[in-house]
Amino acid sequence: MTATATIDVDAVLAGYADLTRREMERYLPPPGMDDGLLAPLTREYPDRRAKGIRPALVFAACQAFGGSLREAIGPAISIEMLHNAFLIHDDLEDESELRRGQPTLHRVHGVPMAINAGDALTVHALAPLADRSVLGSRLSQRVLDETLRMARQTVAGQGVELRWRRDNVLDLRPADYFNLVLQKTCCYTTIYPLRIGALVGSRGSLDANAMESISQFGFYLGSAFQIRDDLLNLVGVEDRYGKELLGDLHEGKRTLMLIHLLAEADDDDRSWLADYLGRPIIDRTTAQAEHVLSLMRSYGSIDFAVIWGQAIATAAHTVFRDAFAEARPSVHCDFLRAMIGYMLERSG
Amino acid sequence: MTATATIDVDAVLAGYADLTRREMERYLPPPGMDDGLLAPLTREYPDRRAKGIRPALVFAACQAFGGSLREAIGPAISIEMLHNAFLIHDDLEDESELRRGQPTLHRVHGVPMAINAGDALTVHALAPLADRSVLGSRLSQRVLDETLRMARQTVAGQGVELRWRRDNVLDLRPADYFNLVLQKTCCYTTIYPLRIGALVGSRGSLDANAMESISQFGFYLGSAFQIRDDLLNLVGVEDRYGKELLGDLHEGKRTLMLIHLLAEADDDDRSWLADYLGRPIIDRTTAQAEHVLSLMRSYGSIDFAVIWGQAIATAAHTVFRDAFAEARPSVHCDFLRAMIGYMLERSG
Repeated sequence: MTATATIDVDAVLAGYADLTRREMERYLPPPGMDDGLLAPLTREYPDRRAKGIRPALVFAACQAFGGSLREAIGPAISIEMLHNAFLIHDDLEDESELRRGQPTLHRVHGVPMAINAGDALTVHALAPLADRSVLGSRLSQRVLDETLRMARQTVAGQGVELRWRRDNVLDLRPADYFNLVLQKTCCYTTIYPLRIGALVGSRGSLDANAMESISQFGFYLGSAFQIRDDLLNLVGVEDRYGKELLGDLHEGKRTLMLIHLLAEADDDDRSWLADYLGRPIIDRTTAQAEHVLSLMRSYGSIDFAVIWGQAIATAAHTVFRDAFAEARPSVHCDFLRAMIGYMLERSG
Repeated sequence: MTATATIDVDAVLAGYADLTRREMERYLPPPGMDDGLLAPLTREYPDRRAKGIRPALVFAACQAFGGSLREAIGPAISIEMLHNAFLIHDDLEDESELRRGQPTLHRVHGVPMAINAGDALTVHALAPLADRSVLGSRLSQRVLDETLRMARQTVAGQGVELRWRRDNVLDLRPADYFNLVLQKTCCYTTIYPLRIGALVGSRGSLDANAMESISQFGFYLGSAFQIRDDLLNLVGVEDRYGKELLGDLHEGKRTLMLIHLLAEADDDDRSWLADYLGRPIIDRTTAQAEHVLSLMRSYGSIDFAVIWGQAIATAAHTVFRDAFAEARPSVHCDFLRAMIGYMLERSG
């Protein structure tokens, strides 16, 4: 084993999450503020316990390339707030019930106020990027450019997934899944936080090849994260996972398991699935969702996804060396390498 | 009469609108692009005919203070795209039926895709502001700061209005209405476009007092715009107006007329109104909305709003002199002064 075995990933994440929460306070509306309910709604998701994977990647990558925690703070809290803003709208679009163990925002406050709160949080999230006092003009500009490119990819990916579900698209291959995950998840969960951290930490000195290797590593890390997330939705423990179990099956989300199942199922099972997925979400019962799960088990779809996850972790380890070739060995590099295993093994 | 009599406001607006449409093309997804339907949805509102009041104010204010059309283009198309993004989410939140004479986006494509398209358009709208090649670093930074402040006000104002409706707030005074209009309408419709135009045109040389006068003028101009908009909803011609007539009465929107009516109505009429406004939108009939209109007529609520509009136009003329004291007389100043009358007299 390498030095990564000594990293307590949960403890490092918890430390970064504390820092993130403290620093976000400067940009969130004050907790007691009454401005027509918007302030408490805007704070609600950021105030719920979160792992803070995205800011942790910014902090660690920045320090791995020689930067300071302080330089990483603006981009780190910006991405965490953007993440929460995306979640508010995603939960609405996906008709999700639970988020971080509590009801989703639109279930508590209705659709109009939830849309508006997501918009408000997006605006708040941009403020730390507009403050150039720490990073200076040139570096701040590059961070902003990266952010806009990332946001464009993320909403485009969400658009693709919404259309898959709306049109009940059934003929998908794993490559389609990974293309979607690249756009919708990896960009803002791993690729962008790592790139921004590296950019700030190196003060923009990395060349295009080095940045490309970091993106590659981010893609594998984010894919491992998403596969694990999809698996936890089927076999996790709701208390730890924080979303409704089998929620993806209710929503008809095109996961690697569902794509495998649709490809492997015999005619009867496939036409039952097509019918199930063609129905409005509200007409899908728990018993039917459980039947999908049992089909996934019997066709080996879950094992299929677990194996994919392991293959991707191997690829992540391989590309890690290139991605951090210009970083000096440090506890921050060790943490980032340890994140590969963490992504595949986490229970929440 | 002054020289403003010679300004053909409609023709000037049409010219600026053409320029805006052409320049927006650089930042909108191409019309034929198929990326899971998101591109055509994102383009849909920007592609519909619009008056383009916001970019016109940026163009005119910039030139009034000595700047060029070219310098104004980035901020002008950014605010027009942001406006369209706001409209997509506002239409959802207000359950509106028509926008620019055609069905609202969520009615055609459903709620999830409309939320996503609004988010996409917001991201596209920020791109011209991130391009600093025309205005340079310092001025671009000030434009971005103004934009974020404006966006914060706009979503906060929308939040207040949503709560008024959700909680069926009835005891409102004209001052509450104007505070709301300041936040929700004036900031992004008039104040911000005028300030940005002045900032860019003067290359940031105006002092705080001068900028404050411009905000004041923007407030009066925007209030006149909103009062007229609310009146057109009651007495306009749907073909020209582009939204459903009496839509505000269906939505229970707290307009100056409704606030006046609630304050003046006798007990019977007021309790009927409270009951009507307390119902879900879907349970309000056309006959009931027409009854609200007839009450507004008999209590003088419409005349009340018309008179407020005239008073505000007078205030706008008074403050105009201060706001443009440092601008040389020009056709651009004349156009901006002529906008006061246009706001009150427009039929669409």
